[in-house]
Amino acid sequence: MPTLKLTIEYDGTDFVGWQVQPEGRSVQATIERALAKLLGEPVRITGSGRTDAGVHARGQVASFQTEKKLPLQAYVQGLNSLLPPDVSIADAAEVDPGFDARRSASGKRYLYRVSNRPSRSALRHRTHWEVFAPLDLEPMREAASLLLGTHDFSAFRAANCHARTTVRKLRQLEIRRIGDDELLFTVEATAFLKHMVRNLVGTLVEVGLGKRDAASISTLLQSRDRRLAGRTAPALGLTLDEVFYGERLRGEHGERVESEG
Amino acid sequence: MPTLKLTIEYDGTDFVGWQVQPEGRSVQATIERALAKLLGEPVRITGSGRTDAGVHARGQVASFQTEKKLPLQAYVQGLNSLLPPDVSIADAAEVDPGFDARRSASGKRYLYRVSNRPSRSALRHRTHWEVFAPLDLEPMREAASLLLGTHDFSAFRAANCHARTTVRKLRQLEIRRIGDDELLFTVEATAFLKHMVRNLVGTLVEVGLGKRDAASISTLLQSRDRRLAGRTAPALGLTLDEVFYGERLRGEHGERVESEG
Repeated sequence: MPTLKLTIEYDGTDFVGWQVQPEGRSVQATIERALAKLLGEPVRITGSGRTDAGVHARGQVASFQTEKKLPLQAYVQGLNSLLPPDVSIADAAEVDPGFDARRSASGKRYLYRVSNRPSRSALRHRTHWEVFAPLDLEPMREAASLLLGTHDFSAFRAANCHARTTVRKLRQLEIRRIGDDELLFTVEATAFLKHMVRNLVGTLVEVGLGKRDAASISTLLQSRDRRLAGRTAPALGLTLDEVFYGERLRGEHGERVESEG
Repeated sequence: MPTLKLTIEYDGTDFVGWQVQPEGRSVQATIERALAKLLGEPVRITGSGRTDAGVHARGQVASFQTEKKLPLQAYVQGLNSLLPPDVSIADAAEVDPGFDARRSASGKRYLYRVSNRPSRSALRHRTHWEVFAPLDLEPMREAASLLLGTHDFSAFRAANCHARTTVRKLRQLEIRRIGDDELLFTVEATAFLKHMVRNLVGTLVEVGLGKRDAASISTLLQSRDRRLAGRTAPALGLTLDEVFYGERLRGEHGERVESEG
């Protein structure tokens, strides 16, 4: 049976998140409904991982199987004509039968946007965490460099994260200034613990505000104690930018957790 | 009576435009209502110019007069707490009594965003004109260079534009590629005719699609005939980025028109 891989964009503002919920509009259910209409049969899709309510995606990946034979362009154009404006299909590909969007993933990259000026912004209210006090970038970068590499990230996981292993390899944690008053975090790892990106950003912002030292990050990491890390940055600043498959990162951490970021 | 100048951002998606209308939600009425609440008296504000439904602003400017004495920060923080999420005040300043946001403006800069990939994008549907066929940037830039400077822009004004003079000085018309599949137009002039930016962009996109030669732009400009120009690019791609005041551009064209862009 052919296996298909969809690359998906969404504006998470008006969704309850990726996963089907008893109540509310989920991205997964919205796509499954459009696929059922396109193919004339019920379809269950597997996402690379859950995203929470408000989290956006530029490159979420989902896989599914179907006996139906449609040209790949029919998936892209057909689904885009059936889906609402805030979800779209950027690409469709046929992949090896063993492919599973969640289990086959070898890494992910997230972006996190922070607005940093004294007043709120009407153009950023769906996409940025608005931090009104000035952030000092240098100590934030110094702290970020201490987090790179393979560590036990227990201090940065959600209280209700059920991952069995907590060691992850953080390959990139870059903080760039955009214009006068915006910060863009780029975070790439083999896999993430629940709320890990948002807890990393929340803690680095406390460093930028002078509430904690850059050097204290090492102690925090070693403590493995979530209660010592910073607040969880709001969901709306987060975007799942890309999911990686293949040799590049494969096999470094087999375990995947749900509800990442 | 003190004169105040507000710098305003808005996401134009859910507005009928800047100007108060008999029906629907306008930016001007939304701000006037918040100001009346803040000051305890009715206030009429003057914008630098109208923007159409769907057009966004990063730096719209409005002016008004009041006898009330509030610290400037009270305007920014007070209005931002009273305004809905899709309008915000970035700055408030006290200005000379003769200042009028419309008549004192000496120039404006608009941005126009085009998404250029074969499929639609959920992350750009409020902010970009989505052009699915590939655009060739070089002829577009060649055509843009022919539009720079002082010309009669009649060919690029809306059919119902009532401006008495049609000569404008186009100071900048830059087209930049962002990433793989996005174009950003930056357009600056002393003043604009109605729909001028959107007609310029619509015509340049036809050049990029190979529907018209770059060199034909000179003939088009000389024709002064609106029917020969390209389609009006959709409002949602347009952002009023900045309004200029002061020496820099002052006095080049005294006349202002309403409903620009």
